[in-house]
Amino acid sequence: MEERQPYGSVTAKTLRDLAELVGPRNVSGDPEKLAAYSHDEVPSASLPEATLAQALVFPESTEHVSLVMAYADRHRIPVTPRGAGTGLSGGAVPACGGILLSFEKMNRILELDRENLTVTVEPGVVTAEINRAAAKHRLLYAGDPCSGDASFIGGNVAENAGGNKVIKYGATGAQVLGLEAVLADGSVTWFGGKRRKDVTGYDFVHLLAGSEGTLAVITKIILRLLPLPKHTTDLLAPFGSVEEALGFVPRIVIEAGLLPASVELLDRRAVEVAMRYLNAKLPEPDAAAHLLIQLEGNDPEVLADEVEKVGDLCLAHGARQVYVADNRTARDKLWKARKAVPEAIVAFHSRYAKEDVVVPTGSVPTLMVALEEVDRAWGVEHIAYGHVGDGNMHVTLLPPEGPEGPEKLREARHDLYRRVAALGGTLSGEHGIGLKRRDDTPLFLDEAQLALIRRVKAAFDPKGILNPRKIVPGN
Amino acid sequence: MEERQPYGSVTAKTLRDLAELVGPRNVSGDPEKLAAYSHDEVPSASLPEATLAQALVFPESTEHVSLVMAYADRHRIPVTPRGAGTGLSGGAVPACGGILLSFEKMNRILELDRENLTVTVEPGVVTAEINRAAAKHRLLYAGDPCSGDASFIGGNVAENAGGNKVIKYGATGAQVLGLEAVLADGSVTWFGGKRRKDVTGYDFVHLLAGSEGTLAVITKIILRLLPLPKHTTDLLAPFGSVEEALGFVPRIVIEAGLLPASVELLDRRAVEVAMRYLNAKLPEPDAAAHLLIQLEGNDPEVLADEVEKVGDLCLAHGARQVYVADNRTARDKLWKARKAVPEAIVAFHSRYAKEDVVVPTGSVPTLMVALEEVDRAWGVEHIAYGHVGDGNMHVTLLPPEGPEGPEKLREARHDLYRRVAALGGTLSGEHGIGLKRRDDTPLFLDEAQLALIRRVKAAFDPKGILNPRKIVPGN
Repeated sequence: MEERQPYGSVTAKTLRDLAELVGPRNVSGDPEKLAAYSHDEVPSASLPEATLAQALVFPESTEHVSLVMAYADRHRIPVTPRGAGTGLSGGAVPACGGILLSFEKMNRILELDRENLTVTVEPGVVTAEINRAAAKHRLLYAGDPCSGDASFIGGNVAENAGGNKVIKYGATGAQVLGLEAVLADGSVTWFGGKRRKDVTGYDFVHLLAGSEGTLAVITKIILRLLPLPKHTTDLLAPFGSVEEALGFVPRIVIEAGLLPASVELLDRRAVEVAMRYLNAKLPEPDAAAHLLIQLEGNDPEVLADEVEKVGDLCLAHGARQVYVADNRTARDKLWKARKAVPEAIVAFHSRYAKEDVVVPTGSVPTLMVALEEVDRAWGVEHIAYGHVGDGNMHVTLLPPEGPEGPEKLREARHDLYRRVAALGGTLSGEHGIGLKRRDDTPLFLDEAQLALIRRVKAAFDPKGILNPRKIVPGN
Repeated sequence: MEERQPYGSVTAKTLRDLAELVGPRNVSGDPEKLAAYSHDEVPSASLPEATLAQALVFPESTEHVSLVMAYADRHRIPVTPRGAGTGLSGGAVPACGGILLSFEKMNRILELDRENLTVTVEPGVVTAEINRAAAKHRLLYAGDPCSGDASFIGGNVAENAGGNKVIKYGATGAQVLGLEAVLADGSVTWFGGKRRKDVTGYDFVHLLAGSEGTLAVITKIILRLLPLPKHTTDLLAPFGSVEEALGFVPRIVIEAGLLPASVELLDRRAVEVAMRYLNAKLPEPDAAAHLLIQLEGNDPEVLADEVEKVGDLCLAHGARQVYVADNRTARDKLWKARKAVPEAIVAFHSRYAKEDVVVPTGSVPTLMVALEEVDRAWGVEHIAYGHVGDGNMHVTLLPPEGPEGPEKLREARHDLYRRVAALGGTLSGEHGIGLKRRDDTPLFLDEAQLALIRRVKAAFDPKGILNPRKIVPGN
């Protein structure tokens, strides 16, 4: 790791300068606000390098972002862009103080273009608003993170958020056609555009997606829209064991030849914690695992046939029963349960490690065996749920009681990472690396790749002011 | 543009050294072979900077590629990777001599993994073989370039080839889950893997796709597979004017709510040249434009309903007639006509400029007006066809007779590019930039982006040995 120049300091003068650039109402140095904006949903104990932002800026326009970046460039002040703070990796938590750019005022849907099937938005739009705006025109915005009612689209793009519909539609990055971005020196440019195809130059649109604000600051986003499927049905299938449930998942494509929109798993503990939190009931709370399978289609009869086919297949592969939710109320109830799991865990547990490791879909059953071994080795417990259709398992590890809990939890987490690496898996499927997992990337990326990441980072951000110290050690 | 170090020269000793590294049968310095391998399908008059390769290497393994790159790195010899030579931008034509890596011996399908729905291939596999191998297992490899019967998958990935199914499935890059690559210094690494999601580090998989061999040499490719739709029907709709045909295209999604697999246009001249070449007939050869629309589905009755719906919509929007091809023979006949256009043009014309500009789908009709203006301004004629469903128009410009033809053609081409830029379009949707369009990129990419491209290139290839002088001026 090279020696670095020290960063410029943020003083009362900096706050005055920023207020002059973007207006006093858009700048704050209030300590309470700085603290409130300097975290995401990762418990701070997991982020030893977290710092507080020293200046908060609420840009109202691309021009504001450009002015702030040019200023930060001149004074070498770190800048951390932040969405709604729903992140799960400390990606928006400043590691070197400096300026925090919060996008809540850049929250407009600028255009929904029905001819070109695109929607152009500012980064501060809440994701679910985009889903709703598209649906009004019988169109689909296919990004669907579980945090969609709260998260900002800018954060979704910066983290390349996944969600419930990745098997069928791809992650957030796959929905992005164009990005307006402010570069480290304050210059404004467009990558991509309202185009379904583009091989002119390198694909920086998809390099920026998932780069966690380390390469440029995103100020406008063009998303693709698709025809909205007319009908949707969810199946809930309780299984006697997690292994049976997981073993069934690939059969949907292989035997039924169908591509579902979602395949989610909830293990017994996940169901239990969600039901307790919502004060609700599922019909078979003692089942070791539930699969929640969503099918979509334009023809109600065909969809009914497909539901029947998948249901029969479930039963043939060990499901105890299949419950079909073919109306909005029944479907909402199921998805409420699924989406409540992360919140419920936080409500009932003070210490936990929320992981979102990925393994090849066919290796998910092996991962579950590895998880049991991790539990035994470190005395932890786990809650397993998530997007098993795409091999992205959400595992929450819970530490044992007692003073050695935190240390056991840390050890268990690293043990899990090592086992995932051995399965050809990866560290994070959608939550990101940020600060939390930065030092674990060398388990998954070799020296050549770590060096490339640092060099590409330097190519975009020669002074190292954009969300420094994230993604890989030495960044 | 910085001053560059001169490249190392290729001598008889170089050939001997290479033969020692990869075996004498895999190295050639034969002048005829060097000439044969130093071009693609772009007429050499359009590539003023084209040079001949000085050494041909036919690697049999990743290790061979690694040895050659390490050698080239030590001696600073340029290396140009080449697929089947079906490229349309001079991407695989050496601009600085050196070593040409031809992948025809790395032509194995290594694994088709039905559990994980992936296929792992070497770069020299012919694309259509992958389509066929997947189809045998009732799976779909969705890449479908018109050159698929000849092109190599490695070239498809390097150019991020599009093809006929991009509206529904995305271009080649969207199918790629993982890449084994040899870096400029000879080190071997894997980007991505058998994983549907991955946010660990930057997305170098999709940065490499479309980078035309300027960042790394691809040696293995993991592609995603999808369930194979059980039924396919093509509609052929002749229209009285190109404008009517194009105006109809967005109605398929907006009014019918359907996402077709393909929407291809053939104007009158395209039909004419293809029919002459194939010695075949379409029912309405005098129609100003034909649309070829492909719909897919699992249920034959639903598909028939959708075909009916799209057919009615065609007729309501000015189609003279709708012909339905619902069996293999009829469908093959239509696609043979569509796919023959590029070959037919080459067979009957000695000079032409084949362009594949992209504009926002809704601006395709405006592009057609602009094309008429280009024709009049420079005395050229055009043949228009291609993937209008995704806004990617294949335009072939034909020069006027006489000695000023080539100059008029060049002027017309640049005039077209300027008009496309003004429409928010881009230079190439799938054929690539290569040598042919390199000096036109500044019309579409601003200074900041050009500088970023050069810096990212340098981050991957500090000595500038990987396919130098491609994509942007100064690369």
